[in-house]
Amino acid sequence: MSEVRQRSKKFIYRTKIKWDKAKKGFLSSSGKPDIETATPPEFRGHAGIWTPEDFFVAAVNSCIMTTFLYYAERESIEFVSYESEAEGILERVENQLMFSLITVRPRIVIALSDQKEKVEKLMKSSERGCLISHSIKSKVEVIVEITIRK
Amino acid sequence: MSEVRQRSKKFIYRTKIKWDKAKKGFLSSSGKPDIETATPPEFRGHAGIWTPEDFFVAAVNSCIMTTFLYYAERESIEFVSYESEAEGILERVENQLMFSLITVRPRIVIALSDQKEKVEKLMKSSERGCLISHSIKSKVEVIVEITIRK
Repeated sequence: MSEVRQRSKKFIYRTKIKWDKAKKGFLSSSGKPDIETATPPEFRGHAGIWTPEDFFVAAVNSCIMTTFLYYAERESIEFVSYESEAEGILERVENQLMFSLITVRPRIVIALSDQKEKVEKLMKSSERGCLISHSIKSKVEVIVEITIRK
Repeated sequence: MSEVRQRSKKFIYRTKIKWDKAKKGFLSSSGKPDIETATPPEFRGHAGIWTPEDFFVAAVNSCIMTTFLYYAERESIEFVSYESEAEGILERVENQLMFSLITVRPRIVIALSDQKEKVEKLMKSSERGCLISHSIKSKVEVIVEITIRK
C-alpha cells in the first residue's frame, strides 16, 4: 500500500448512472459490469434491484473486508473464510433522513486456535482503518465472531 | 413517500459479503443479483471489479438521481433523459484516508424549454434532499447541465 504512504497522493473513483425508465437506471464504471439500480419499494420504487441505500451499506461492509484482507496479507495471517452481514438504519435526524448507524458483523473462520488473538487485533485495525467509515457521519459498529475450524 | 413523513419510522437496509479468494468477494442482498467486489488495483487488488470506493461514489450519484426522480414525479415534470457522471476524490485528511469531495454532473435533456427553470429548481431540491449526502462527511458538489431537445 505504498501509495497511501505518499501523503500528497489523491485517488479518483468515477461512476456513471443513466436513467432507463420509471425509477430505474444503470450504473457503470469503466471496464466493469453494469449494475441495475433503482429507488427502493418503500420510496415508490422497485423490488429486487440494488438501490443507493444498499450501495451505502455495501460500501461500509465491503471496505471492512478489504481492509481486513490488506492487514491479513501484511501480517501473513491465514484464515479459512470471511463473511459479513451489515445492516444500516436510515432515519430522520434533525429533520433530515440519514443513515444513523451501520452494524457490521464479520464472521471469520480460522484453522489455528493460536491465531485468534491476532485476528481479533486485525479486525480492530480494520475497523479503525476503513476509509469508508472515515468518510461517513453514521456510527459504525463492528461485531466480530471468530470460530476455530474443528 | 408517505413513510418519510412518519417521523418515527426507521428503514433498515441489509447487505452481505462473502470472501471468495485473493482480494475478492461477492456482495449479496436478498432477492437481488450478486455483485463481485474487490480491493482496487491501487491497493494491491484487482482490475475490472466493483470496489468499496466505487460503491461509495455510486451511492451518492444514484441517490441524486433517485431523489430527482421522486421530485420529478411529484411535480409532474417530464424529461427526456438523465445521466450523470460522478467523481470521488480519496485523499489523506488529518492523517486518515477519506473521500473529501464528490462531484456529481447530471445532464438532463428536456423537451419543453419552458420547463428548464422548474428542472433547475428540482435539481436544487434533489441536491439538498439526497439522504446519502446527509450521511457523509465528504463535500458534495452538483453541477447540472440541462439541454433542450431540438
